[in-house]
Amino acid sequence: MRPAGPAPSDDDGPAAAAPLLARAHELDEAEPLRHLPGRYLLPEGLLYLDGNSLGALPAGVPDAVADAVRRQWGEGLVASWNTEGWWDAPQRVGDAVGRLVGAAPGQVVVGDSTSVQLFQCYVAAARMRPGRRVVVADPDAFPTDLHLLSSAARLADLEVVPARPHEVPAVLAARGGEVALLALAEVDYRTGERCDVAALTAAAHEVGALALWDLAHSVGATDVDLDAAGADLAVGCTYKHLSGGPGAPAWVYVAARHQRDVDPPLTGWHGHADPFAMDGRYVPADDVRRMRVGTPPVLSLLALEAALGTLDDVTAAQLRARSTSLVGLLVEALTALVPELPLAGPADPARLGGHVAVRSPDAWGVVRALAARGVVGDFRAPDLVRLGVAATTTTHADVVGAALALRAVLDADEHRGAEHAVRSTVT
Amino acid sequence: MRPAGPAPSDDDGPAAAAPLLARAHELDEAEPLRHLPGRYLLPEGLLYLDGNSLGALPAGVPDAVADAVRRQWGEGLVASWNTEGWWDAPQRVGDAVGRLVGAAPGQVVVGDSTSVQLFQCYVAAARMRPGRRVVVADPDAFPTDLHLLSSAARLADLEVVPARPHEVPAVLAARGGEVALLALAEVDYRTGERCDVAALTAAAHEVGALALWDLAHSVGATDVDLDAAGADLAVGCTYKHLSGGPGAPAWVYVAARHQRDVDPPLTGWHGHADPFAMDGRYVPADDVRRMRVGTPPVLSLLALEAALGTLDDVTAAQLRARSTSLVGLLVEALTALVPELPLAGPADPARLGGHVAVRSPDAWGVVRALAARGVVGDFRAPDLVRLGVAATTTTHADVVGAALALRAVLDADEHRGAEHAVRSTVT
Repeated sequence: MRPAGPAPSDDDGPAAAAPLLARAHELDEAEPLRHLPGRYLLPEGLLYLDGNSLGALPAGVPDAVADAVRRQWGEGLVASWNTEGWWDAPQRVGDAVGRLVGAAPGQVVVGDSTSVQLFQCYVAAARMRPGRRVVVADPDAFPTDLHLLSSAARLADLEVVPARPHEVPAVLAARGGEVALLALAEVDYRTGERCDVAALTAAAHEVGALALWDLAHSVGATDVDLDAAGADLAVGCTYKHLSGGPGAPAWVYVAARHQRDVDPPLTGWHGHADPFAMDGRYVPADDVRRMRVGTPPVLSLLALEAALGTLDDVTAAQLRARSTSLVGLLVEALTALVPELPLAGPADPARLGGHVAVRSPDAWGVVRALAARGVVGDFRAPDLVRLGVAATTTTHADVVGAALALRAVLDADEHRGAEHAVRSTVT
Repeated sequence: MRPAGPAPSDDDGPAAAAPLLARAHELDEAEPLRHLPGRYLLPEGLLYLDGNSLGALPAGVPDAVADAVRRQWGEGLVASWNTEGWWDAPQRVGDAVGRLVGAAPGQVVVGDSTSVQLFQCYVAAARMRPGRRVVVADPDAFPTDLHLLSSAARLADLEVVPARPHEVPAVLAARGGEVALLALAEVDYRTGERCDVAALTAAAHEVGALALWDLAHSVGATDVDLDAAGADLAVGCTYKHLSGGPGAPAWVYVAARHQRDVDPPLTGWHGHADPFAMDGRYVPADDVRRMRVGTPPVLSLLALEAALGTLDDVTAAQLRARSTSLVGLLVEALTALVPELPLAGPADPARLGGHVAVRSPDAWGVVRALAARGVVGDFRAPDLVRLGVAATTTTHADVVGAALALRAVLDADEHRGAEHAVRSTVT
């Protein structure tokens, strides 16, 4: 079980710390989801602010995985594809993810990586808007989004037009009827800045384009509502705020209204209308199952399912409220305690997802020095110290503790000269 | 631990059974790999002849997975990407698979599904043979191969020319300089029939084409030698004869000589030369890592790694010898005991992979009735009863026991009228 987290005493830090710590404790006591951290296993004393790279282990996962291995695989063997519901797991787990991104059942499947499903979506979107060749995308998106978009553009003869989220309306106005797709992330993976999914989706629709949302940094942290926003397509990973495990399979959303038209390029047999007919001709399933590709990694998928079970009684709105409260206090603590490191994104927690980044020319050294103090954040080239709050496991005391540790690192000059050759890790 | 397997006494079956059983016991006693079944966990009394759909659980896997979950994920958290070697696992596990298909290190990566990697290979092969538009492929291949090939053909403007393996030389002679790729499976997923990888690869090369091999039913069952055959590309799954677990990630082989030219379409960030530079421009790794796509499912990948560890001291030639001996006895037992069900493939075990199929208009009912007797095979539409031997876990006594059970099912008419609506399961 999760310990309450270290609570630095008032004399540990600068004067500004005392009121912050007091408020952190008040907020933690009043927090409606204060029981949630107890459902996860984190090493005693660790301040883990890297759940936005890999979420903490939910307490129920080890037994669920052991059961999947020993009983379902070891005893049930191949029959478990039916008897244990392995075959339908991509849709079943998809619905559980969907609940947290405002997707009514039947619109999400889980199985491959985000990269694979991004490719699916780019090509499929272009096919749904024949005659339109432009994809508007954020040039500062997570690299894999851009890599796969370039590849899809090469295969499907598309033109990629760069636009930061705030530039999108102008670009859409300029390119209008040429635009097949607007592809954006709700939360910037570096700065944490959010954009307005509903407004930008509406702007895309206004010119007849589709909107694809990368929600890798959103799901479990924001209360994005895909159905309400009228989104067309969305993807996201599950190993961050959902704590699905390392490399847990990603998900893809196709709005119900598009499911009979969407025409993805990875026509694997799991997307076939009748997979066991063993028909050489591909007939896609008539619903979101057509986004399935090959045989999914069942053990990883069942670990994810158990992780999602941890949140069965929690809504996206509750997670968002908790995340916003944590992010707000983190911004406040950083601003008060380490004013010399500027925020990379906005200060208003309403405009942030589940992480906050500050800039430092010694960012790598800072991250290493924090780790040595038991505070895990991560580095994003070239100059970002990224601190993620997890609505599930982080406490308000944790975020103040992290800011205090950062203050101490800078004061003691622990961040200089750290080895720069080794690069960290999975976003 | 694996029990010795039921050994039907002589009076359980027809007269032909006695000498078969005697020989089965002799062969099992003399078998150099007789210790191997003891390394796997199978339910007591079960005759599991469906390892070619999902291999048995290796005894070392539960602890390895538990460690991956509790210690590596739960305690090591995001740092385990480096400290536990998660990041390099696709290559490390790839080399372990490669050893069993005649691939020197550095030519195989593991991570996505076979379907995904087939698509990668089709598109990449077409790009490596610009100006050639024909792909020669087996029209009776496993459906996903054909589905993905059709999709790649549509995107890359290719023509798919069907040819059964024995027709390939004539088709290559006819289409010669137009052919970019020959795409075949070594082992027919239904009949078990093998084709000659080296000879057909040479025939492809003779007309300047590349050769792609689907080894899903080969790896762990045959001694295919990709390097010696001069193969260009190969893919395969790992959940059959390798016992990697349900939906265990697939592998892809790119011959060393092609690794700087291969240009796959799924340009995910794990295939980037410097993934943590977070560069929006895609620069592929200069080796087989460029076949990596997104973040791989680590738990499933580590289960596979542990499964492969079970075979560390075993060679492909040894597995092939054991498999051939088992298949030979299975053919003999089926021919002697159930002569009314014709073999779907050849009778010569040298021409078979790790499974044997017989035809019956009541195939589904037969498979169900066998299962009720504790003999697990599988059904392939429309009329095949498929029985797989696993070089790792099946004994000679098992295969005779299965043939006797089949005899008993037919004699007692247990196979008629079984529910046909429910279809089974993963190939």
